[in-house]
Amino acid sequence: MSDHSLAPVAAHEPPYYAAVFTSVRTEDDGGYGETAERMEELVKDIPGYLGMDYARTPGGLAITVGYFRDADAIREWSGHAEHRAAQRRGRAEWYERYTLHIAKVERSHEFERTPGD
Amino acid sequence: MSDHSLAPVAAHEPPYYAAVFTSVRTEDDGGYGETAERMEELVKDIPGYLGMDYARTPGGLAITVGYFRDADAIREWSGHAEHRAAQRRGRAEWYERYTLHIAKVERSHEFERTPGD
Repeated sequence: MSDHSLAPVAAHEPPYYAAVFTSVRTEDDGGYGETAERMEELVKDIPGYLGMDYARTPGGLAITVGYFRDADAIREWSGHAEHRAAQRRGRAEWYERYTLHIAKVERSHEFERTPGD
Repeated sequence: MSDHSLAPVAAHEPPYYAAVFTSVRTEDDGGYGETAERMEELVKDIPGYLGMDYARTPGGLAITVGYFRDADAIREWSGHAEHRAAQRRGRAEWYERYTLHIAKVERSHEFERTPGD
C-alpha cells in the first residue's frame, strides 16, 4: 500500500467488521504496487468502509486489516469486479500463500501517548 | 516477535477470535525484544491459543494478530499478570499509540500456491 500512515485506523463503535489478510509474497512484484494503489482508491468508495492498516516485515509476512461498518460492506468489496480481477492476479502472480479472516469486532480501544510522557 | 515464520496462522474452523493489535513504536527499544519473546512463550500456555502473526514496516506500523478459540482464552491472556505488567511497560516506554480490536471470526479461508504454478 502506498500510504504507510503512522496513525492506525481508529477504534470505532462496535459492532463493525475487520478483514484480516495475511500473506507471503512471491518474488514477482510486477504490477503489484500499481494494483495495490488502485485498490486503495477503489475501496474508499465502498459505503461503510472505515479504513485500512498495513504492515510488512521485509522478507516476511504482510498483514492488511480492512475495517468495515457491516458485513454488507465487506461483501460489496469482496465482489467488486476490479477487486476480483486483482484477487485472481494475486493468486496467479503475487502470493505464495495467504489467509483471510472475516471477523466481527466486539470491542476495541486505543491508546495515545500524552505529549510530555 | 522472534519468529517471523513464513507461514501465516492457518484458517481454523469458525467461530474463533482474533485480537488485532496495531501499534506505532517510540524510539525506545530497551527491553522490548526480550519482553516480546517472553510474551510469545507465555501465550502458548493459554488454553485455546491458536497462534500469532506479526508484521512490521520499518519506520511504520506494526500489526500483531493473535488467534484464540474463544473469548475466555482472550480474557485469560489479557489478564495474565506478567502480560499486564508488559502492557503497562508498553504504554510507559514502547508505544507512541496503538489500537486493539477484539473480533469474532465468522469465516476464513486460505490459499497456498501449488508447486509448479
